[in-house]
Amino acid sequence: MSSRGLRIVSWPLERFDEIWPIIEEVAEGEDTYALPAKLTRDEAIKLWSEPGRRIYAALSGEEICGTYYMRPNQPGPGDHVANAGFMVPLRSRGAGVARLMGEHALAEAKRLGYHSLQFNFVVSTNTPAIRLWRSLGFEVVGTLPNAFRHRQLGFVDAYVMYREL
Amino acid sequence: MSSRGLRIVSWPLERFDEIWPIIEEVAEGEDTYALPAKLTRDEAIKLWSEPGRRIYAALSGEEICGTYYMRPNQPGPGDHVANAGFMVPLRSRGAGVARLMGEHALAEAKRLGYHSLQFNFVVSTNTPAIRLWRSLGFEVVGTLPNAFRHRQLGFVDAYVMYREL
Repeated sequence: MSSRGLRIVSWPLERFDEIWPIIEEVAEGEDTYALPAKLTRDEAIKLWSEPGRRIYAALSGEEICGTYYMRPNQPGPGDHVANAGFMVPLRSRGAGVARLMGEHALAEAKRLGYHSLQFNFVVSTNTPAIRLWRSLGFEVVGTLPNAFRHRQLGFVDAYVMYREL
Repeated sequence: MSSRGLRIVSWPLERFDEIWPIIEEVAEGEDTYALPAKLTRDEAIKLWSEPGRRIYAALSGEEICGTYYMRPNQPGPGDHVANAGFMVPLRSRGAGVARLMGEHALAEAKRLGYHSLQFNFVVSTNTPAIRLWRSLGFEVVGTLPNAFRHRQLGFVDAYVMYREL
């Protein structure tokens, strides 16, 4: 998939070090992800290499301008629902990277046989993400009260968002 | 904590093999938990030994009649919300084991400094569990459409349930 010079590719775990700076930056932000601010590379590799997790990267030429993962949201009798998480570094925001990755994830989840795609923890103050997911057909199916400690805003809700495929 | 001859104790991971038959039985049921029906002991140990997960057991004399775990529901800025999962084998049902464990979990989560307790995946057809959690002050804050493949009933919803501490 490509748009305005961007393309999405499947990303091998062996090349984790090239996406790690993006993950590190997003974790340090403490404003969109429930990841430790001081996430170490080893902790991240452990998370990103769990069985069933696939990794993708958004490329502009050879530059990595975003990454996302997809995995079964639950094991066993819940593994027909996909979960995904999207990360775009500050320097690449506003260029449609997240939208392209979201569209790619929907197509990919369908191709892999999932019935739906669910985001478990969309921070309620992350307005650009919520607007984007709504525009791609996701709806809020749950509100987790005060579930996220935002670095600037303190305790804020998180949403569960869902779309059938 | 004890009631009608039952007591709840903290359970060391080294004694995992004594609670494993309960976990195995619940997974095989494919009617309440998003765990693989053919969950192996090794897979279960890996799950139950994740960092931050605590294990408890309900005892009647020396007999184990239930087990539950508690852990941070999310890492980093989400780790003030506790998650717990409760398992009672068929032979011990109807004796108030789940209620006692639920009450214990609420007290324990508070003692450990959590702000709230959240269940991520309560199968909507698991009426006894839903009735119990409601009676302990939990409410449904999310409905995950068709998120669980029930062995007998096919695709059914799962609930996210939540209680402030």
